Amino acid sequence: MRIAISTGGGDAPGLNAVIRASVLAALQRGWDVLGIKRGYAGLLGEDEVIPLTRDSVRGIGHTGGTILRTTNRGSPFNYPIVQADGSIKYVDRSDELIANAKALGIDAIISIGGDGSLKIAQQLVDRGMKVVCVPKTIDNDVPCTINTFGFDTAVSTVVEALDKLHTTAESHDRVLCVEVMGRDTGFIALYAGMAGTADVVLIPEIPFSIDKVCEKVMARERAGRRFSIIVVAEGAIPVGGTESILGESMPGQAKRLGGVVDPLSREIQKRTGKETRSLILGHLQRGGQPTSYDRLLSTRFGGAAVRAIEEQAWGHMVALQSPHIVFVPIPEVLRHTKRVDPDGDIVMTAREMGISFGD
Amino acid sequence: MRIAISTGGGDAPGLNAVIRASVLAALQRGWDVLGIKRGYAGLLGEDEVIPLTRDSVRGIGHTGGTILRTTNRGSPFNYPIVQADGSIKYVDRSDELIANAKALGIDAIISIGGDGSLKIAQQLVDRGMKVVCVPKTIDNDVPCTINTFGFDTAVSTVVEALDKLHTTAESHDRVLCVEVMGRDTGFIALYAGMAGTADVVLIPEIPFSIDKVCEKVMARERAGRRFSIIVVAEGAIPVGGTESILGESMPGQAKRLGGVVDPLSREIQKRTGKETRSLILGHLQRGGQPTSYDRLLSTRFGGAAVRAIEEQAWGHMVALQSPHIVFVPIPEVLRHTKRVDPDGDIVMTAREMGISFGD
Amino acid sequence: MRIAISTGGGDAPGLNAVIRASVLAALQRGWDVLGIKRGYAGLLGEDEVIPLTRDSVRGIGHTGGTILRTTNRGSPFNYPIVQADGSIKYVDRSDELIANAKALGIDAIISIGGDGSLKIAQQLVDRGMKVVCVPKTIDNDVPCTINTFGFDTAVSTVVEALDKLHTTAESHDRVLCVEVMGRDTGFIALYAGMAGTADVVLIPEIPFSIDKVCEKVMARERAGRRFSIIVVAEGAIPVGGTESILGESMPGQAKRLGGVVDPLSREIQKRTGKETRSLILGHLQRGGQPTSYDRLLSTRFGGAAVRAIEEQAWGHMVALQSPHIVFVPIPEVLRHTKRVDPDGDIVMTAREMGISFGD
Amino acid sequence: MRIAISTGGGDAPGLNAVIRASVLAALQRGWDVLGIKRGYAGLLGEDEVIPLTRDSVRGIGHTGGTILRTTNRGSPFNYPIVQADGSIKYVDRSDELIANAKALGIDAIISIGGDGSLKIAQQLVDRGMKVVCVPKTIDNDVPCTINTFGFDTAVSTVVEALDKLHTTAESHDRVLCVEVMGRDTGFIALYAGMAGTADVVLIPEIPFSIDKVCEKVMARERAGRRFSIIVVAEGAIPVGGTESILGESMPGQAKRLGGVVDPLSREIQKRTGKETRSLILGHLQRGGQPTSYDRLLSTRFGGAAVRAIEEQAWGHMVALQSPHIVFVPIPEVLRHTKRVDPDGDIVMTAREMGISFGD
Repeated sequence: MRIAISTGGGDAPGLNAVIRASVLAALQRGWDVLGIKRGYAGLLGEDEVIPLTRDSVRGIGHTGGTILRTTNRGSPFNYPIVQADGSIKYVDRSDELIANAKALGIDAIISIGGDGSLKIAQQLVDRGMKVVCVPKTIDNDVPCTINTFGFDTAVSTVVEALDKLHTTAESHDRVLCVEVMGRDTGFIALYAGMAGTADVVLIPEIPFSIDKVCEKVMARERAGRRFSIIVVAEGAIPVGGTESILGESMPGQAKRLGGVVDPLSREIQKRTGKETRSLILGHLQRGGQPTSYDRLLSTRFGGAAVRAIEEQAWGHMVALQSPHIVFVPIPEVLRHTKRVDPDGDIVMTAREMGISFGD
Repeated sequence: MRIAISTGGGDAPGLNAVIRASVLAALQRGWDVLGIKRGYAGLLGEDEVIPLTRDSVRGIGHTGGTILRTTNRGSPFNYPIVQADGSIKYVDRSDELIANAKALGIDAIISIGGDGSLKIAQQLVDRGMKVVCVPKTIDNDVPCTINTFGFDTAVSTVVEALDKLHTTAESHDRVLCVEVMGRDTGFIALYAGMAGTADVVLIPEIPFSIDKVCEKVMARERAGRRFSIIVVAEGAIPVGGTESILGESMPGQAKRLGGVVDPLSREIQKRTGKETRSLILGHLQRGGQPTSYDRLLSTRFGGAAVRAIEEQAWGHMVALQSPHIVFVPIPEVLRHTKRVDPDGDIVMTAREMGISFGD
Repeated sequence: MRIAISTGGGDAPGLNAVIRASVLAALQRGWDVLGIKRGYAGLLGEDEVIPLTRDSVRGIGHTGGTILRTTNRGSPFNYPIVQADGSIKYVDRSDELIANAKALGIDAIISIGGDGSLKIAQQLVDRGMKVVCVPKTIDNDVPCTINTFGFDTAVSTVVEALDKLHTTAESHDRVLCVEVMGRDTGFIALYAGMAGTADVVLIPEIPFSIDKVCEKVMARERAGRRFSIIVVAEGAIPVGGTESILGESMPGQAKRLGGVVDPLSREIQKRTGKETRSLILGHLQRGGQPTSYDRLLSTRFGGAAVRAIEEQAWGHMVALQSPHIVFVPIPEVLRHTKRVDPDGDIVMTAREMGISFGD
Repeated sequence: MRIAISTGGGDAPGLNAVIRASVLAALQRGWDVLGIKRGYAGLLGEDEVIPLTRDSVRGIGHTGGTILRTTNRGSPFNYPIVQADGSIKYVDRSDELIANAKALGIDAIISIGGDGSLKIAQQLVDRGMKVVCVPKTIDNDVPCTINTFGFDTAVSTVVEALDKLHTTAESHDRVLCVEVMGRDTGFIALYAGMAGTADVVLIPEIPFSIDKVCEKVMARERAGRRFSIIVVAEGAIPVGGTESILGESMPGQAKRLGGVVDPLSREIQKRTGKETRSLILGHLQRGGQPTSYDRLLSTRFGGAAVRAIEEQAWGHMVALQSPHIVFVPIPEVLRHTKRVDPDGDIVMTAREMGISFGD
């Protein structure tokens, strides 16, 4: 038996622990393991395929990043090729991938990735490849699993930042707006905002009014709390759309910054008269050593992926349905979306803690 | 409406976040909140009952400890009284407690604690008191809830320690035995051992043979891995009982140290000839700032406890059954025990990672 | 004896430990202690003056921020007053300050602050006030002292961020540019860049050429190191001035961002073709719990300030000249500037480690 | 030019950063570098000598431990050999060491170690070898240098532990005695005790009376502070010698535990009636990632050692005499001892903070 491992999409703390666990569990069964570098690039002649041994994975269980490197480059079914004239053409390179996998004697693939990787995996399964998946998303938006590795670490990183910013905001009577990851969902913003006792949390699932945000800041001021911490998910949307606070002249700039936090800060300062600063945590959230929670979950997922191969659960994704690890068919995963429940106990409790969602 | 909050049993990171959440959620409903100091001592005239306001709970969400202090002193139904001659007599002081609660106008109590507190709560409910519970255990051994606050922090503390010890063990070619909490269950040892890539994990659920432990150490030696990290739960039991390694002469001492780690270390050194050191993490695991995971869970539990009062769920415990918070009747909780499943995916994966359980 | 304490300028981790130490050392001598809120605002009728007791400083030794709050509002000798028409007029309010201090029975003042605070302190001494100073600067640019509290914490925060970013940069083959504090000096960038093994460090003391920076990135690429970490002090200056990379059209924006990191990133991406991201750590560097180093130094400084009062060392600043704490006359401090020595052993060693300064 | 690097004595965070810096600085000069495994064992045929390349030291700057491993086995001039009958004979193996070094073409050695390593280095220099030294001691007891790497990390580890223990001690009204490293000096205990706001600090430099310690605990009790944190250096000595509290029957046991903390705890509990617990931090203090302070210092030391070779400063030790790195002749280092100054500003300030030294 020879299996191969691929990591695709953005970096997430715990990737190496998944790789390590899969490699050790496979070797223990007497299997061979290969590592495909940079997503599927290693199977498309654009990077390497390397053997993964006990030595390859020694001491990586607690490290960030991925020893296989990763990429957002796109699908082998729709692969971007830069043309002579600089334009980009998308081509289907799946035949090449499948042929190369066969040539290398690869019997099955463990694909570690998010939405995009799950879709590619299903397409490969449809073409007869044997693939099992491990879900990876910083944002916690993969359905059918309680959570995924990397999320707890990202939340911890944001909470550490909020802890640091709290004292400075308070010492200087300032408003601090902190942008965190979450284009489509507000899990990081919500969880970190609650754990880090933010005053305002703005998430894609609950459109916000800048009036309400400023009201909250001023209500605190009147109560002698002369500072406020505002956590903003990248994808937070003002009522009326982003133009309502971005205005006409700077959409390009705001886009570059990933969201609304900079214009939002300016607007809050203008309306409340309070010194307001913004901070974009960006890549900090993807990096670093995984928390112990994520290390354990990654290890369980890595081990489960090998059992999924053993059970020939092709086209399935390993998932945490506490306290169990289960295998879920990819189509079922893709059929759902996972979003913050605006009526769930977490949002409800947040409101009772005095957190405003700007609605 | 006037409610009171009590914290009993050992310290656990997140207690203050529960108190804060319950206080804020209650105040938001226009209720009064009292804090009973040191378990129920505040209602027995041995300590204070204090008002809990918004100011009382400001800035405590991320702190360790409990502003109400806590105690292991025992049940009001079986309260230890030191007699004139130094002996201890146990008396039922529940009438006094109930009378004092009535005198203070307390309508309902939130009891935050472990097994012992749950039993007392049920007895108080049987006597007509209105009590809801929040589970608290470092050891993760309260059934009917995925986990409890404090556990993630304790595991993190152990993993940090293991990370530190790894490099020293490796630099010095040493065996290091680390004792962690867990008299009845091995959750902390197992989770931390996996996340911290220990080589041997000894837990109460799987009796260990010292021969097998030494075999593992020597197998690593032969493979060029000249150090080993052994994580030992307090309650880990050698096959044949503790006398088998403690011998005759020092049972008292071993008891004082909380477990078998010291004699175990000596025995390993004697049998393998390798320098072996022991370390008892002890109280470090109960202290410190809660992790972001525990802060969020504590806050959810604190909010849920107030909703439980609102719903008159007397005699219920709030519980995490991901992704939901539910209310479970105390008798149902007490009917179960929660232990590490020796056949579950975690132990299985641990074995595949090369971890020995000494069996 | 009645003394008062004031904290001015930007937040720095360790301020509370200085306050605590001064208060405890003064109380132990039987003195009274007052706290002036927000710089000197408390003595100008714009904020409070509060008594500082043993209870006021309990448990603040390890916290960030300042219980006295702080401000950059400006000097009492040149105080900004907003006029009816919105314009700002600067007035000398020192008489008022001195009168209020006298009215409160203040015998001596401990002023904790940076350059600005030192100058104000000297002016107050010239007017007959009894002031001693404790140096405070995140940037480490106060002369005559080995370092000041807050600097070690700021460097640690940056190094933690670099550790996190390393793995992500490497996994994604990216260039990451990280802007850190240091308008006039590059101490934070240099120390953190070395401790965090950056590839390029850009500091005000060594003007950089963007060509050299890109050369370094490409040299690493050729050596198979497909990522680079670039640490940029706020005040880093390209050869030829900031316009050389900022261009004409966006100086306003660059200023808002505090420096050159954003245009620098764009330029590197354009020239090298490598994906490049920027991150501005900003206020994170001022916040959070002080490191143990800073807690100790703050405590020593706080204790020394009280001894300076006892010795009537008016107009002196406490300073660390390892292993001793000494008192230095303010004019001597102000006569010097403290900058990174481009020929010192640290820069020299950094170069030997392969770090490029872009020169 | 071919140099070799050796690490001896106990583990200390920063060893790898020194190795990395020396290797990079040497390679940059076009030199060859060898690594001697486990002290000098690699030159005595008992372990390896390995080439150290750029790849060998990649990514080790922030790791604990030493890639060369280390040992306390003893001097090549007095090397322990186990005889057939189990007894140990000490022999001079220096000729063998020198011959092997010559055979490997080693021109100069960088010896990283403490007291013991310095003495061996001097003996080797006396025999004509070219050796320079980098001081290493967790305890901070190497004279002629402000401090050494590893010390700041050890203090940080202790302070983190004290922070955790504080909340638990307070919640449970307990006395906690924490034993830290320091057989001959109390630097770790003193620095960490101040930074971590201990109540009592016991160090070898100031013999303590158990009466005074108990008095302090009870004085706090009377003031409503019902818990105490006591930091005890391994080498702390009660007035009257250790027998005064160890008694007759358990000297062996106390020795095993490294010090007086366990009998001390029992004695305090007996005399004050307060629940008292002890904790021995042990190896935790030697391990883990170095702090940013230690990483920088290690890197400077590693670079300086190569410059020392370049300047043929045989028999010198690199040292920090802030802000400079200097070279000090080994005999001058060995002539001094470095101890906590009981009359210095740190102890004085500690007393003013209310810390008792038990005297």
